[in-house]
Amino acid sequence: MLPRGRPRAMGAVVLLLLLLVVGFFLFGRDPEYGLGTTATLDEKPYGSRNRSASSSQLLLPSKCEVMLHVAIVCAGYNSSREIITLMKSLLFYRKNPLHLHLITDAIARNILETLFRTWMVPAVVVSFYDAEELKPLVSWIPNKHYSGLYGLMKLVLPSILPLSLARVIVLDTDVTFSSDIVELWALFDRFSGVILLWLDRLQQTGWEQMWKLTAKRELHTLTATSLADQDIFNAVLKEHPNLVHPLPCVWNVQLSDHTLAERCYLEAADLKVIHWNSPKKLRVKNKHAEFFRNLHLTFLGYDGKLLRRELFGCPNQFPPGAEQLQQALAQLDEEEPCFEFRQQQLTVHRVHITFLPHQPPPPRPYDVTLVAQLSMDRLQMLEALCRHWPGPMSLALYLTDAEAQQFLHFVETSPVLSARKDVAYHVVYQDGPLYPVNQLRNVALAQALTPYVFLSDIDFLPAYSLYDYLRASIEQLELGSRRKAALVVPAFETLHYRFSFPNSKAELLTLLDAGSLYTFRYHEWPQGHLSTDYSRWREAQAPYRVQWSADYEPYVVVPRDCPRYDPRFVGFGWNKVAHIIELDAQEYEFLVLPEAFSIHLPHAPSLDISRFRSSSTYRNCLQALKEEFHQDLSRRYGSAALKYLTALQQSRSRA
Amino acid sequence: MLPRGRPRAMGAVVLLLLLLVVGFFLFGRDPEYGLGTTATLDEKPYGSRNRSASSSQLLLPSKCEVMLHVAIVCAGYNSSREIITLMKSLLFYRKNPLHLHLITDAIARNILETLFRTWMVPAVVVSFYDAEELKPLVSWIPNKHYSGLYGLMKLVLPSILPLSLARVIVLDTDVTFSSDIVELWALFDRFSGVILLWLDRLQQTGWEQMWKLTAKRELHTLTATSLADQDIFNAVLKEHPNLVHPLPCVWNVQLSDHTLAERCYLEAADLKVIHWNSPKKLRVKNKHAEFFRNLHLTFLGYDGKLLRRELFGCPNQFPPGAEQLQQALAQLDEEEPCFEFRQQQLTVHRVHITFLPHQPPPPRPYDVTLVAQLSMDRLQMLEALCRHWPGPMSLALYLTDAEAQQFLHFVETSPVLSARKDVAYHVVYQDGPLYPVNQLRNVALAQALTPYVFLSDIDFLPAYSLYDYLRASIEQLELGSRRKAALVVPAFETLHYRFSFPNSKAELLTLLDAGSLYTFRYHEWPQGHLSTDYSRWREAQAPYRVQWSADYEPYVVVPRDCPRYDPRFVGFGWNKVAHIIELDAQEYEFLVLPEAFSIHLPHAPSLDISRFRSSSTYRNCLQALKEEFHQDLSRRYGSAALKYLTALQQSRSRA
Repeated sequence: MLPRGRPRAMGAVVLLLLLLVVGFFLFGRDPEYGLGTTATLDEKPYGSRNRSASSSQLLLPSKCEVMLHVAIVCAGYNSSREIITLMKSLLFYRKNPLHLHLITDAIARNILETLFRTWMVPAVVVSFYDAEELKPLVSWIPNKHYSGLYGLMKLVLPSILPLSLARVIVLDTDVTFSSDIVELWALFDRFSGVILLWLDRLQQTGWEQMWKLTAKRELHTLTATSLADQDIFNAVLKEHPNLVHPLPCVWNVQLSDHTLAERCYLEAADLKVIHWNSPKKLRVKNKHAEFFRNLHLTFLGYDGKLLRRELFGCPNQFPPGAEQLQQALAQLDEEEPCFEFRQQQLTVHRVHITFLPHQPPPPRPYDVTLVAQLSMDRLQMLEALCRHWPGPMSLALYLTDAEAQQFLHFVETSPVLSARKDVAYHVVYQDGPLYPVNQLRNVALAQALTPYVFLSDIDFLPAYSLYDYLRASIEQLELGSRRKAALVVPAFETLHYRFSFPNSKAELLTLLDAGSLYTFRYHEWPQGHLSTDYSRWREAQAPYRVQWSADYEPYVVVPRDCPRYDPRFVGFGWNKVAHIIELDAQEYEFLVLPEAFSIHLPHAPSLDISRFRSSSTYRNCLQALKEEFHQDLSRRYGSAALKYLTALQQSRSRA
Repeated sequence: MLPRGRPRAMGAVVLLLLLLVVGFFLFGRDPEYGLGTTATLDEKPYGSRNRSASSSQLLLPSKCEVMLHVAIVCAGYNSSREIITLMKSLLFYRKNPLHLHLITDAIARNILETLFRTWMVPAVVVSFYDAEELKPLVSWIPNKHYSGLYGLMKLVLPSILPLSLARVIVLDTDVTFSSDIVELWALFDRFSGVILLWLDRLQQTGWEQMWKLTAKRELHTLTATSLADQDIFNAVLKEHPNLVHPLPCVWNVQLSDHTLAERCYLEAADLKVIHWNSPKKLRVKNKHAEFFRNLHLTFLGYDGKLLRRELFGCPNQFPPGAEQLQQALAQLDEEEPCFEFRQQQLTVHRVHITFLPHQPPPPRPYDVTLVAQLSMDRLQMLEALCRHWPGPMSLALYLTDAEAQQFLHFVETSPVLSARKDVAYHVVYQDGPLYPVNQLRNVALAQALTPYVFLSDIDFLPAYSLYDYLRASIEQLELGSRRKAALVVPAFETLHYRFSFPNSKAELLTLLDAGSLYTFRYHEWPQGHLSTDYSRWREAQAPYRVQWSADYEPYVVVPRDCPRYDPRFVGFGWNKVAHIIELDAQEYEFLVLPEAFSIHLPHAPSLDISRFRSSSTYRNCLQALKEEFHQDLSRRYGSAALKYLTALQQSRSRA
């Protein structure tokens, strides 16, 4: 079966091939290059150097002297996810510096800018181009899907890429490399005479007029109702066959049930690029599907941080911030007892915001986003959370690359989760032994799009009415205009996996009296919620103000622009306490809401809490972090911070 | 810093190089080959085919016609783990069929036989050779470590490998490939004239006499107290320099703080093999350490099942069982609601038994091994379990390749766990969406080495005295000689993460009466332990017999040769119930032990139990599994199995 919109007669071995060839002649306009000499831009000449090659073998430009240019059109959430697997396979085999030219919509740009900034791959330059600018040039072509427009943009890439760019390889987002892209780049040289020829012709005819004419004729004579980019490429090149120099088929092995592709790879000794352009994707019943699938899965689950390696034998080509980071890491003392903590604090995690399609909430003045973070072992909380919180959520997930794929599968197979488009999932990729809890919270918080946020934890289920109640309370208390306040949502806990969630405060109090519910950490850590004053809450009819006290860590609703969590707290302990101190130091009022509640469900202690309990080093390091935090507080708030230090010293003398 | 036992003067670029060269001339004894023609063994000729190569380029034998031979000496638990990373890197890049010649001790053989059998990589043949046979040939050489003997065995490999083997590449276990091994194999051709020469010389002098003489002289004249294999290689080749043709250094880039290696890879365009022979391993401060480390980490965490792909363009070369398995999988209907269950049941997981060093328990007639299985999210149970159970354990861990490395780190950094050598950890590698609970239990059960096993679950902590008490009870009840019995260990649960574990039955009963403890799943699933008869247990002074009843699933002590768990039960539900039915059907008596108990600690519901609760398909599939199980029971036990079916039908009509 061939993908929709591509004429069957053209067979399966066309798309990428044409794209590459197009990239070839459209952008081969550096006149020096055209005259048979070498390119003189950001590449050094390589045509003349080192090994002699037999006629059947390609000249491979060696190592790092040559910068390769790759252009990709990428729009929307799913393509932004796909492109990462392509990038991993490309980066795994490449040995040259790379300049990516990404033509993106606003969504993809937002995602990919964050991703590449945090990925910090040496010797990769990324330039973004706004796909909006290209839309008018192709929007006159009838197209079946909105997304088809992005495909058509490949026809007009020259009008957006810099004129100085002599050559570029154009790729679809759904290809996987199984070899070094430099081998593909080297094909440019092989056909340089041909390019010269084409340039002449292009000057005479003009590519733009050519494809437009063809497209219009196709629309008229064939009474086509829509045209995809491949349709136009195919039609133009059918009329001008001398424009095409077919690439060896190994450079575009298309995965489909069709047998043309198979003929290619049975004869070839080697594959270079696999193109996942069958709508059946991984499930395709190709004889060699297993080979293809495993290669694809290899890079799908590949730990992207391993690609942060420097290019072998090249001078350092650090991405922004990487050099300072490396120096800071190098200065750490491996023998120091808290080395692990220091290292974890400095770790820059790759971040993939809005990993799944997402509809941002409409702008509403009192809207609240639930903010939380989780790892794989709390995935089963998501469905219940969706039932309890009908509003927007911003969740950071701490996952490996392989787990991110499992998570994708989990959401796709859950009717509850796949129905919710107002939940934004942000993947923070795992790196290091300590859980970077506050870094995760900050990622989720930064991506909340409503004016208020409910800072919760993943193992809490809010009262069914909480979302509505919070919005009403924010409006009533006029938080937006005059007060700087943190609304406290009192926290409870159950020890039973299955229990009837109370539908009202009255029901909750009954359960509390019956001993089926407790106030949160009543047994282990009562000071965490002492200030909330549960006995006052029982009777309260209106919000009441409470004062900060040592180790207070309530769940609060605050404006989105509230202080960030202190990322130095990694692993277990004190991560929320420090944030509440920060709120108090910045003079947020703590107002307890009389009808609000949230209930913690039981789970096993995390690995970090177990380490905290069993290791005195761990506890000492946490103590050191606390002290450094207080030093910073004193620096920033002066004598106003004295009360926190006093409280810390008192708690230490008690311990 | 150079590794122990290697003369500093020889620098860092020797070991693998020499090994390869040794492989070269020692085994290049096919006379045909020596006369300059091509090898005629299990390889087809490749010297004459396809592409012409320039003088500086190597002829690469194409694809699958050429079988490559690799020999590795591997002994003990740690080398058996190391070799897997080597194998993954080798298999990732290779395009040829491979014959592995593994010279192993009993430990490595046990581990690697299981691993390769379950790995099922196409076009890989594995032959094992007993290292014991080689020991007498080298044991006269004084050596610093017992393990050094295995290094010396490389000197005498010819005496154990088949005479028909013309050429073999000899590798250390601590190398990582970064290219196709066929390129290394191709070097044989390049030096064929040289090999001919060497063969002549070897005929005259004899390699065996040569190295023995040298070794003896070294021992005398240099008053050496010990010799490692490298010392001897170095000495022989110093005396006979014309025996050596140095390999290009890219074929043995040694990772060390030494700068000789750096000189190599700064000049080279490409690396082929990285040799992890520095004792500092991953922490080495080499300028390019990051590149090396990431390549190594790539394969350390690489999902080995992705290497199950067939060789590209080669005729099928199925490992044993793989073809039938593929057929069975192909026959499954993807649209069937229980497809996921069917697929999971057929999945063959890679199994790495005794992943960490282990001391088997001394043979004792009444000894009991605790058998359980877990995944990453229960790791924090291990330390507590070790404190509660001082006896041998056999634990199956369901992990990804990357998690297995985290697990290794976890054990190494835990004083409690690293002190215990009587706990055997068996890694079963993850594959598929449903937890293969009974397959895991069977792996752990099969590896128990004592006459009795305590079949427990990872989230239970046994009474401190249980290990001693069970051994005494087995002896007293004379289980070994006459009775076929399953000793029942009554199960309780706490809902609190932290609680004081009762030191006696009396203390337990007090907690039970106080409502701090419950009988296990008292609220959710009382029938699971109904037959245990807790009120009788309160008063019991002696073991008492109980009868099977529907859904009974106690934790039991049975002889090691008890029936296996039914692997069809994947995911949540009925996995222990079916096993207890099997015991009852085989007429095991259930004897409840009056002083035995075990307590379940709280944890969040697993993903599988959540899916069971939320998905009617999941529940229906479990029901279908139950029915198939009963059909099998009837076939095997006839009318005796009727009572189980009746119970099932009754429970269904109640539901």
